[in-house]
Amino acid sequence: MCEANAYVRQDGVEELFLEGVDKVVPMDNQLYLENIFGQKKMIAGTIKELSLVDHKIIIEKI
Amino acid sequence: MCEANAYVRQDGVEELFLEGVDKVVPMDNQLYLENIFGQKKMIAGTIKELSLVDHKIIIEKI
Repeated sequence: MCEANAYVRQDGVEELFLEGVDKVVPMDNQLYLENIFGQKKMIAGTIKELSLVDHKIIIEKI
Repeated sequence: MCEANAYVRQDGVEELFLEGVDKVVPMDNQLYLENIFGQKKMIAGTIKELSLVDHKIIIEKI
């Protein structure tokens, strides 16, 4: 499986927000995330960086 | 490897923009993409959707 883990980066520190993410849909100033276990989360933020080979999605809070 | 293919969606049609994408970095109204073969591309657009299990990054042009 090729899902990634989503982290929130704040002050240079990355905190795990959601594991095993499959879908990410930006909506206005929010991100909708859905993982392979069916969990759904929203966060007020933007995608800062994707690093797919490392399975990482870096989110920055707004 | 868990890279994805980046597609530009326009009028409901998805056109391949870059294969084997590892990194995506949004910068102002542009996206910087880098693939596992070392190719680097910029596009004036935003991420519309990620579907990682399907290895898809959907970009919408600005």
